[in-house]
Amino acid sequence: MIPTKMVIASHNQKKVEEMRRILEQAGLEIEILGTDSFPDLQDVEETGSTFAANAMLKAKYVSNETGLPAVADDSGLCVDALNGMPGILSARWAGQHGNDHANLELLLAQIAHIPRKRRGASFVCAVAYCEPGGREFIVEGSMNGEIIDSPRGAHGFGYDPIFVPMGQSVTSAQLTAEEKDVISHRGHALKAFIRELSAG
Amino acid sequence: MIPTKMVIASHNQKKVEEMRRILEQAGLEIEILGTDSFPDLQDVEETGSTFAANAMLKAKYVSNETGLPAVADDSGLCVDALNGMPGILSARWAGQHGNDHANLELLLAQIAHIPRKRRGASFVCAVAYCEPGGREFIVEGSMNGEIIDSPRGAHGFGYDPIFVPMGQSVTSAQLTAEEKDVISHRGHALKAFIRELSAG
Repeated sequence: MIPTKMVIASHNQKKVEEMRRILEQAGLEIEILGTDSFPDLQDVEETGSTFAANAMLKAKYVSNETGLPAVADDSGLCVDALNGMPGILSARWAGQHGNDHANLELLLAQIAHIPRKRRGASFVCAVAYCEPGGREFIVEGSMNGEIIDSPRGAHGFGYDPIFVPMGQSVTSAQLTAEEKDVISHRGHALKAFIRELSAG
Repeated sequence: MIPTKMVIASHNQKKVEEMRRILEQAGLEIEILGTDSFPDLQDVEETGSTFAANAMLKAKYVSNETGLPAVADDSGLCVDALNGMPGILSARWAGQHGNDHANLELLLAQIAHIPRKRRGASFVCAVAYCEPGGREFIVEGSMNGEIIDSPRGAHGFGYDPIFVPMGQSVTSAQLTAEEKDVISHRGHALKAFIRELSAG
């Protein structure tokens, strides 16, 4: 059954906007709340070793604290030449949580000597859902592409400016929100989420 | 046949010292030259995707340029929670080649939230040997252990101050040179190198 209210369990405003946009676009008739409506919520320590585990930690915590269904995303960029890292450490790759500029610059410096043919990468997104005393599930989505030498574009966030999705000639940060949602890891994961939510 | 002269193909003085020490300790009667004896040698771009490939790139270049047998090491720290990275990027993890302090501080920040039980890591060393028109071979050595929260000790170099070898209570940087050589990745690789060199 589709709930009437749901909390998006994230303090990242850019991510909340993107999730809200995709969910509303799908025509779900759910009142979607941000964590800003619940000032007592703490940051959840992301101690899991996978996107899925960390997403579920966040969804469970927010659902328990608010008594409402909660949906959480954990996502990141997995770079082939870095054995899949930054991965779950994407948001704190340069050491400080959420410094998009520092994270991106560090990544570019680390792969500066890596030849173009070994620049493959994937964005991965796990979406976890948790209802108080009810359903729990996790879905995932991904987007393949490659890392370029310097940032291009002003949309999106995180590593978008250095990632060219497969089949595109521009970076994720040069796509409009609507173009990005159609092909993005988060778009794919949230579409799977909506299917699962509607089927349950 | 054991050559009478050999060049250590590295511009890293700490590494050259350690290699020279281990080779001399083994009683090899070889005149060991550093790259400082050959001022025309360039830095070799490490374009390989493994320690072994990068070590061989360096050994071949120096052997070709000097007309002498050359031995090169490529080594690094492989951290489980970082899917085996920094790995071949160990020396430039923070973006700038050879900044030990920045590399180590970045690594500590990246794994700050990783629980103790997932702090496993290995130092890995590949040693490549190349004779002009003669033999070529590669051997490897490794040392398992775990990463601690803050640096301890003043010996060694690189990530030694944050790495506690398995079975030890101190970091690699708190061991004496002689203690380190017995258990280290470079010690193991160079012992294998000497066996192979003597057998050929």
